[in-house]
Amino acid sequence: MRVIYNEQMAGLAQLLGEMAGLAGSAMDRATQSLLQADLTLAEQVITEYDRISEMISDVEERTFALLALQAPVAGDLRQVVAAIQMVNDVNRMGALALHVAKVTRRRHPNHAVPESVNGYFAEMGRIAVSMGESAKEVLETRDPERAAQLNQQDDAMDDLHRHLFTLLMDRDWKYGVAAAVDVTLLGRYYERFADHAVEIGRRVIFLVTGVLPPDEDSEA
Amino acid sequence: MRVIYNEQMAGLAQLLGEMAGLAGSAMDRATQSLLQADLTLAEQVITEYDRISEMISDVEERTFALLALQAPVAGDLRQVVAAIQMVNDVNRMGALALHVAKVTRRRHPNHAVPESVNGYFAEMGRIAVSMGESAKEVLETRDPERAAQLNQQDDAMDDLHRHLFTLLMDRDWKYGVAAAVDVTLLGRYYERFADHAVEIGRRVIFLVTGVLPPDEDSEA
Repeated sequence: MRVIYNEQMAGLAQLLGEMAGLAGSAMDRATQSLLQADLTLAEQVITEYDRISEMISDVEERTFALLALQAPVAGDLRQVVAAIQMVNDVNRMGALALHVAKVTRRRHPNHAVPESVNGYFAEMGRIAVSMGESAKEVLETRDPERAAQLNQQDDAMDDLHRHLFTLLMDRDWKYGVAAAVDVTLLGRYYERFADHAVEIGRRVIFLVTGVLPPDEDSEA
Repeated sequence: MRVIYNEQMAGLAQLLGEMAGLAGSAMDRATQSLLQADLTLAEQVITEYDRISEMISDVEERTFALLALQAPVAGDLRQVVAAIQMVNDVNRMGALALHVAKVTRRRHPNHAVPESVNGYFAEMGRIAVSMGESAKEVLETRDPERAAQLNQQDDAMDDLHRHLFTLLMDRDWKYGVAAAVDVTLLGRYYERFADHAVEIGRRVIFLVTGVLPPDEDSEA
């Protein structure tokens, strides 16, 4: 039983990691579609979200089967419960990339974001992709130090998000209300993407150390 | 074992229901604070979120104990797994009420929302509160028809949300960019609150019927 459990658990962690990586690469392409008003790229992200959705169902069934057939206890059980929680986070990360792609599609052939704000989204996209990669590594290696680094990346994301609001609230904002609405929503999508990656890090830290780090969610 | 399991599971469902009710009443007060620019009420919602957070940890520990000590199988196991998933939804519902209250606080002593838009938020607030109540009933009664009704309430919320965007995108919007940013974020908070309530309904339908209804999330 133990061998089967270990194999299945490793498979589950790998699948979760793969999904985090996919969410990151979806956010990468979504960001490119946004910056270049590239409809084809946006459509690609939208179509490929189905793949993440299918993997979600697969992971949910696997966690259930693990509980039902292996009846894990103690630390093993904690791992499966954490997987059930984290699958929601990777799912949301994928959905948020999808939302960014949908903004691109909605505004095409126009650019959703004024050119002078592009730099912010390029950087938020870069951080998001890197956090997707970090989450993937953390899921695969369960390295708590690596997991804690997600907080620093999240801080950088929050800084950019705050700057973005400063720009929006400035009397010199000259791109009108429609662009402000898009920029507001987009900013929130990137920020939430980062929050979910941080949440994965917290869960892994809890698994390894037994202590759940405080929720430093910038929103709370 | 069976009796203990049933008791513990009923206790868990009741606690989840209570939390959904709390999230609904938090959204009620948050909406009032928003419409009346009432700082005291906003602070109350912000402080009371701590109570929801504590209940979250309590529920998480209980689900874990249930799995560890009772090793439920089949339908019983599905219930516990669903509880683990739904606790995240009620947590987010509470956090979204918190966000609304924080917008009130940030703009105090000004009103965050232009008077002519108040009616929209009053109505979105009303629907949110009612969905919190519905989610509570659904968790307590596990009535799949009641759960399906959450979709209709969500449709009403989505309609309002779309109208709100039409207002924002109108050239006649005369309240400036800052108000548009607040209205955009607030609209999203109410819409997400509704989505989480719907998600609880879907999980309950799955538990009772064995079929997970399609994700009709308006965003996807």
